[in-house]
Amino acid sequence: MIAEKMKALVNNSSAIRAMFEEGKKLAKEYGAENVYDFSLGNPNVPAPPEIQKAMCEVAQKEDPVVLHGYMSNSGYEEVRQAVAESLNQRFDTAFEKDNIIMTVGAAGGLNVILKTLLNPQDEVVVIAPYFGEYNSYVSNYDGVIVVVSPNTKDFQPDLEELEKKLTKRTKAVIVNSPNNPTGVVYSKETMEKFTDILKKKQQEFGTNIYLISDEPYRELVYDGVEVPYLTKYYENTIVGYSFSKSLSLPGERIGYLVIPKEVAYAQEIQEAANVATRILGYVNAPSFMQKVVAKCLDAKTDVFYYNRNRETLYGALVEMGFHCIKPEGAFYLFVKSPIEDEKEFCKAAKKYHILIVPGSSFSCPGYVRIAYCVSYETILNSLDSFRQLAEEFRIK
Amino acid sequence: MIAEKMKALVNNSSAIRAMFEEGKKLAKEYGAENVYDFSLGNPNVPAPPEIQKAMCEVAQKEDPVVLHGYMSNSGYEEVRQAVAESLNQRFDTAFEKDNIIMTVGAAGGLNVILKTLLNPQDEVVVIAPYFGEYNSYVSNYDGVIVVVSPNTKDFQPDLEELEKKLTKRTKAVIVNSPNNPTGVVYSKETMEKFTDILKKKQQEFGTNIYLISDEPYRELVYDGVEVPYLTKYYENTIVGYSFSKSLSLPGERIGYLVIPKEVAYAQEIQEAANVATRILGYVNAPSFMQKVVAKCLDAKTDVFYYNRNRETLYGALVEMGFHCIKPEGAFYLFVKSPIEDEKEFCKAAKKYHILIVPGSSFSCPGYVRIAYCVSYETILNSLDSFRQLAEEFRIK
Repeated sequence: MIAEKMKALVNNSSAIRAMFEEGKKLAKEYGAENVYDFSLGNPNVPAPPEIQKAMCEVAQKEDPVVLHGYMSNSGYEEVRQAVAESLNQRFDTAFEKDNIIMTVGAAGGLNVILKTLLNPQDEVVVIAPYFGEYNSYVSNYDGVIVVVSPNTKDFQPDLEELEKKLTKRTKAVIVNSPNNPTGVVYSKETMEKFTDILKKKQQEFGTNIYLISDEPYRELVYDGVEVPYLTKYYENTIVGYSFSKSLSLPGERIGYLVIPKEVAYAQEIQEAANVATRILGYVNAPSFMQKVVAKCLDAKTDVFYYNRNRETLYGALVEMGFHCIKPEGAFYLFVKSPIEDEKEFCKAAKKYHILIVPGSSFSCPGYVRIAYCVSYETILNSLDSFRQLAEEFRIK
Repeated sequence: MIAEKMKALVNNSSAIRAMFEEGKKLAKEYGAENVYDFSLGNPNVPAPPEIQKAMCEVAQKEDPVVLHGYMSNSGYEEVRQAVAESLNQRFDTAFEKDNIIMTVGAAGGLNVILKTLLNPQDEVVVIAPYFGEYNSYVSNYDGVIVVVSPNTKDFQPDLEELEKKLTKRTKAVIVNSPNNPTGVVYSKETMEKFTDILKKKQQEFGTNIYLISDEPYRELVYDGVEVPYLTKYYENTIVGYSFSKSLSLPGERIGYLVIPKEVAYAQEIQEAANVATRILGYVNAPSFMQKVVAKCLDAKTDVFYYNRNRETLYGALVEMGFHCIKPEGAFYLFVKSPIEDEKEFCKAAKKYHILIVPGSSFSCPGYVRIAYCVSYETILNSLDSFRQLAEEFRIK
């Protein structure tokens, strides 16, 4: 039979993915245009044209033995150098290639760094609501998740509770801003106070607390909001990045870790992360895509489309009487369920062919996540269904 | 500091990879043409031309939103279907798409299936000499490696010892044929007896023992030798395949698992492997490369080049007095060290700019691995150095 640990995981298997399969089923039954599938963070905006151009160029010009061959487990040196330089230019940092490890997406990067850092029973603090997969990633290395409760006022981290939840066993804290599932960007002020608390606690305990900044949504921001680059706020910051959303390449599994030299035991961590990349079976980030993204570091997905969806859906839902904070980033709306049991609410929504994810999947029951990375047409067509849903729950 | 478990791994970090870095250093110092780097299994034969053609076609014709998007964690359905059909045609099997899970290379596939199957302390039997990374893969899930000692007569598995090493705690047995590091192909007769033992022991213990067939070298065989397809010999067989060697795509991280419906608890294992793919952070095999290999399932790397290297180097080494079994597959020679401590021998070889890997890395001390996936020129140029090495050790 399968492993005990896996049984629980299969049973609890991400509500998000289950919904994905259900969406396909409904679409088959009623036609894709009559199903409003807001369940999955799968970008609907195509990769920018630079990607296709780079793909053809790389495929035609590079020596296939090098292009498809093994390289250092941390990635091609020139790709890592290009990433470092691009970051330095954008954020006035001073990274070198040794600070960059190419990874199999952000999920790969998080697993690599957690494998690198965690001893069994080490605590990893997360800020609810948070991406539910963190539970599995931490459990993969026998770490213990410690949850800071959601601050449902504005979904900035609850700093008082953060301070209380940090202990001598805290090995890492994960932050994710722009946030999945709320779309909230943690402000400069928040992160200054946040990292001050970490510094204080490090000193108090005589430990190193690594701040892992999970940043797949960094480039998806609206209204000119700034996402602070955390290595400048706190020395023990490690950044996990992905091109999944910024260049609409989620299936390609390409991203990187930044392990700055200021991090305590930086060299040991870099070396161990290189080994972890290998022994976790990634071996290296996909070679062709490494070369492709290196040519497209200045390319941008067009946030116009996401922003139009955001404005339209947010405006309409609020007008219908739903409660929701206006997101500044990512492509999610995190809407208060009109009834306490938001899973019931999600079930009701399905009657109107609306697929949304319960907040419980993000350790924040009572809310639902709407992934608006869908066509504008879907947004417009869904509004009647949302209206009927609002009426059923008499939310006005 | 880094995790305790990682410290040991970093210290023991694969001699193969260390050698790889050393090779680059020597090449810089003396010129690449004067260094004979036989340390890494990195194919030197370029990917067949079908690959580049398929890459350009897929990049230009497929909708980028689908091409680079998320799909089921197990892979695109049509890709899995194509793989199943190709296997059925070649091996007269009856696989369907549900039996195939696309993976991040064979290393990814092995990790997925071990995560799926292993409870802590479960035993995984391996046949020495074996790919040293199996130790890490099994340890990732707190399993225990049980080693069947090398049969240095012909490097076929020692079946008597195999029988003794199987216990009630044996969850899986890994075989790798054509074998890394020996190049030996486990014969039909061997595998019939091998699987008979597994069947007997399953019955005796009332357990399921999963045979994991790790097959990255399946297509690299010489002299028309046949590699038995093990699902036909033993119901509880799971196949791990990679396109790394067969299509010279090691850096792309693309392969698949076959979980036939005859396997005990097949459906549970398929579902759990799907979840394991996600939570180990792979999420899915790289999407673009899935589509590319699906178009190239009949393409073949040209073994002519490997075979020429094999014949030339094998012939020359034997003539110099080295002892080595003639490999029937893969691209390795496993040569008896003229002195007991083969690490010393490897060190001596380095003086002549020959880089080879100690057999200890494969749990078979007293031997060295020569990866002959290099240019024919390198083979020819290296012969003088090998001759000097032979003279130093007066092996004739």
